[in-house]
Amino acid sequence: MSDPTSKDFTAACPAPFAAHDRVVLAHGGGGRAMHRLIEGMLGAFDNEALAARHDGAVVSVGTTRLAVSTDSYVVRPMFFPGGDIGKLAVYGTVNDVAMCGARPRWLSVGLVLEEGTPLETLGRVVESMRRAALETGVAIVTGDTKVVERGKGDQVFVNTTGIGVVEHALRIEPASVRAGDAVLLSGDIGRHGMAIMAAREGLAFESDITSDCAPLAAMVQGLLTRGLEVHCLRDCTRGGVTSALVEIAEAARLELELDEAAVPVHEDVRAACELFGLDPLYVANEGRLVCFVPEREAEAALAALRADPSGTEAAIVGRVTGAGRGTVTVRSRYGTARALDMLNGEQLPRIC
Amino acid sequence: MSDPTSKDFTAACPAPFAAHDRVVLAHGGGGRAMHRLIEGMLGAFDNEALAARHDGAVVSVGTTRLAVSTDSYVVRPMFFPGGDIGKLAVYGTVNDVAMCGARPRWLSVGLVLEEGTPLETLGRVVESMRRAALETGVAIVTGDTKVVERGKGDQVFVNTTGIGVVEHALRIEPASVRAGDAVLLSGDIGRHGMAIMAAREGLAFESDITSDCAPLAAMVQGLLTRGLEVHCLRDCTRGGVTSALVEIAEAARLELELDEAAVPVHEDVRAACELFGLDPLYVANEGRLVCFVPEREAEAALAALRADPSGTEAAIVGRVTGAGRGTVTVRSRYGTARALDMLNGEQLPRIC
Repeated sequence: MSDPTSKDFTAACPAPFAAHDRVVLAHGGGGRAMHRLIEGMLGAFDNEALAARHDGAVVSVGTTRLAVSTDSYVVRPMFFPGGDIGKLAVYGTVNDVAMCGARPRWLSVGLVLEEGTPLETLGRVVESMRRAALETGVAIVTGDTKVVERGKGDQVFVNTTGIGVVEHALRIEPASVRAGDAVLLSGDIGRHGMAIMAAREGLAFESDITSDCAPLAAMVQGLLTRGLEVHCLRDCTRGGVTSALVEIAEAARLELELDEAAVPVHEDVRAACELFGLDPLYVANEGRLVCFVPEREAEAALAALRADPSGTEAAIVGRVTGAGRGTVTVRSRYGTARALDMLNGEQLPRIC
Repeated sequence: MSDPTSKDFTAACPAPFAAHDRVVLAHGGGGRAMHRLIEGMLGAFDNEALAARHDGAVVSVGTTRLAVSTDSYVVRPMFFPGGDIGKLAVYGTVNDVAMCGARPRWLSVGLVLEEGTPLETLGRVVESMRRAALETGVAIVTGDTKVVERGKGDQVFVNTTGIGVVEHALRIEPASVRAGDAVLLSGDIGRHGMAIMAAREGLAFESDITSDCAPLAAMVQGLLTRGLEVHCLRDCTRGGVTSALVEIAEAARLELELDEAAVPVHEDVRAACELFGLDPLYVANEGRLVCFVPEREAEAALAALRADPSGTEAAIVGRVTGAGRGTVTVRSRYGTARALDMLNGEQLPRIC
């Protein structure tokens, strides 16, 4: 069917269409291809909330500021060491709302089910969502269910959209990051990605690695109730710590320096990464955040992160060196420096 | 992988699992099977907003009331006479927010893309969403993109979640419906379903039927700005006018009577329905609502509906006869009466 609108779109935002003419797995990988595709779509939807290039949007009703974030979950396998798609769908979106500095309150759930999916499987996912919602203090207030024919889906896809309330006057977003800020990481990295990899059928490596999948809202509240001047927060999901840092650096037009030796990586994760030729800095996490605060508050922020059960290994891992084009430089334990960029391809499809 | 939680879920809400042990297409059809499945899941997520059994949830932040609604869109074909999946994904969710009596303000978009989907197709969908958002005055403020392997999805699935602000003191929900209320319908029915049916590959009937796909928020504002005492609103999507009325009647524990002769059905739609052995009262619409108001305000509400471009054929089609178990009785043009129930099977998969 012909549609005159397609021309307008291609003219308005050619960027995402330069490298490919069809959707490839890398478009969902959290790296450069996804970034380009999304930048193209954001062009079409241009508005102030999107212009902040944040994990979620902050909008105002009168004097109330609300944070809104959405994510679809297609992780495979659906049940993995340390979590499952239901838990991930609640924690993941609650975390994105928290990254806006908001207290997560309400969640919507949209299910796309494949014909033939055992209802017992669906029941396990729903029960897991119920528990995760209770645990994180959000109410699942509305939902929708669609069914597609066998072979047109993959058992259960979940979308959750979260709404939270911003209860302070800070603007927690890339534009608030300043030269001199300290960069903190809330814990060891790479466990979610390597747990999924280990759980994937056909992979012949034995491992006890469990996903780091965890809710981060309480940790964020911990920073805020201490009155710390938090400039930016981001959870390090698809594309790992690297994508989170590069996105923020590019949006803020600043240069960052990362101290590789300061980044906590567990020995089993490091070994698994070496086996697969992966850099832990690119591996997905589901319960880790980076936090930007003024240098003078770095130690207090570190203490706040460490006070949370999933922040015990938090560390100061870098700093903002000055204005620039968004380069993130990593200094290795051997003193060498290299620029980090987002992944160009796809490391591991359907990680979340 | 064994999971102790599955037992809890099955014990807590066995109802949806009685008739089937796997997901069937009817679970997405808007009829009784879907209703049972959803009731089961609502049991797991029990809270006040869900208890209202409305199209969306109304939640409060201080003195501000917000309406939230979510829908996933999997319609096939994605482009059909009178609309496309992008337009539907914006209008549909905006309409659900409006059915809570709220002014729709913000929208999130979650895309699940199948590897191999032409980016030109995605571009058309995105452009259509952009236009529909402009038209309905909502801002698309946040989004997410996931990619699944070839054969694990079907090109483009869209989830939209809408947030609106309730700007009046009414409680527009099934619990507000009273005996004696008039039931109004905003226009002719059955066009969306028959347009999709006509557009489906392999159907050998020629037709000029276009979808009724339309935004309804301005129509609702028209009712509210006239100060009418609106008791309940619902758009008549999957499962048609029948599902909308039965859902409201059951939630409110009231009996309704519908005057079949008063329900507008276009001649071409009626002919197509007869050809396929379908009852227009069960066919999906995407731009029609039912409205409950006190009898004394029925004519004023009718005038308000008719003042909207998509309400020119609005009609008073029934009334609430009294308390009961939620039976909806339809009186035919020949004077006979029959009880309407939700569909038990699936009339037309992936209608929206």
